[in-house]
Amino acid sequence: MGLPQGYTFRKLQVSDYSNNYIETLKVLTTVGEVSQARFEELFAHWDSLPQLYQPHVITNEQGVVVATGMLLVEKKMIHECGLVGHIEDIAIATSEQGKKLGYTMITNLTQIAEAAGCYKVILDCSTHNIGFYEKCGYTNGGTQMVKRA
Amino acid sequence: MGLPQGYTFRKLQVSDYSNNYIETLKVLTTVGEVSQARFEELFAHWDSLPQLYQPHVITNEQGVVVATGMLLVEKKMIHECGLVGHIEDIAIATSEQGKKLGYTMITNLTQIAEAAGCYKVILDCSTHNIGFYEKCGYTNGGTQMVKRA
Ligand SMILES: CC(C)(COP(=O)(O)OP(=O)(O)OC[C@H]1O[C@@H](n2cnc3c(N)ncnc32)[C@H](O)[C@@H]1OP(=O)(O)O)[C@@H](O)C(=O)NCCC(=O)NCCS
Ligand SMILES: CC(C)(COP(=O)(O)OP(=O)(O)OC[C@H]1O[C@@H](n2cnc3c(N)ncnc32)[C@H](O)[C@@H]1OP(=O)(O)O)[C@@H](O)C(=O)NCCC(=O)NCCS
Repeated sequence: MGLPQGYTFRKLQVSDYSNNYIETLKVLTTVGEVSQARFEELFAHWDSLPQLYQPHVITNEQGVVVATGMLLVEKKMIHECGLVGHIEDIAIATSEQGKKLGYTMITNLTQIAEAAGCYKVILDCSTHNIGFYEKCGYTNGGTQMVKRA
Repeated sequence: MGLPQGYTFRKLQVSDYSNNYIETLKVLTTVGEVSQARFEELFAHWDSLPQLYQPHVITNEQGVVVATGMLLVEKKMIHECGLVGHIEDIAIATSEQGKKLGYTMITNLTQIAEAAGCYKVILDCSTHNIGFYEKCGYTNGGTQMVKRA
């Protein structure tokens, strides 16, 4: 399964602030007011830790961001100092859902994690998205517990 | 609920390699062969990113490590560049279970995360530990999906 013609999977770029990145994230949850300066500060932080924070996007034929996904690679002590990939903040623009962008985002981030040596990749999702992640090759790994401040 | 007398909650120290840290982690999962050199390399990496990786232990009256817990603080774009705490790799030495060490580890890591500004703290667990995390103030937040390499 490939992307529609003209669509590209690539790393997040600093210019994506004014290229629909924040708007795309809003499909997922509250983003709030993120100024260009704050975006650039966080982008620079992520960029200073490139093995750890690996933010990606998919752009459409116009080069506009229509999907987001973060791969976070954690260095653990267990499993002989093993690496675990965490997939976070997956969002597909509403008008672009159902075109396999989600599938491509998840399978590409998973491949990047495995190529980096991760012994597993994990993510948390709501019940109504379990079927989507199963199509991406994932299985139920347990329960997420949360405490909100 | 406090710790038993003489027990201490503190940050992981480099000297904990020969102080039962690895043995305690083995309660949780496979650790494998981690030499002192590899431990010190990973410790130094964690220590170079002190806001991100916050490994902690509980020691007993003899000063020996009997409980482990990692707090990982992720910087996100969503929620106005919000912080999310991830609790990882909780293990209580078998002979020390049932003495509220787990409870103290989780509630202390949660307080550290909230004091650092995290809008939520999350962790993944197996079904048989849900009741324990509920006693620590956590609620069911969704499903963990996993893909093993
Ligand atoms: C859920 C989401 C990531 C899926 O991405 P998408 O690009 O719309 O999905 P795809 O086109 O890649 O779907 C791949 C396959 O999964 C299926 N699928 C998609 N969403 C599904 C769901 N919620 N449940 C079950 N199957 C689903 C598709 O039908 C498709 O199946 P097929 O290969 O048999 O045709 C996307 O719709 C989205 O961003 N939703 C809102 C935000 C969100 O929920 N983020 C994830 C938080 S856990
Ligand atoms: C699960 C674990 C972290 C609990 O730590 P602990 O120090 O033994 O537990 P505590 O003494 O702090 O228990 C606090 C409360 O939770 C309860 N509790 C403990 N384990 C429980 C469980 N599995 N299910 C339901 N309740 C549980 C205790 O009875 C106690 O209740 P009380 O306050 O009413 O007396 C620990 O037993 C452990 O390390 N187990 C093996 C490794 C593991 O499973 N790690 C977690 C991976 S998700």
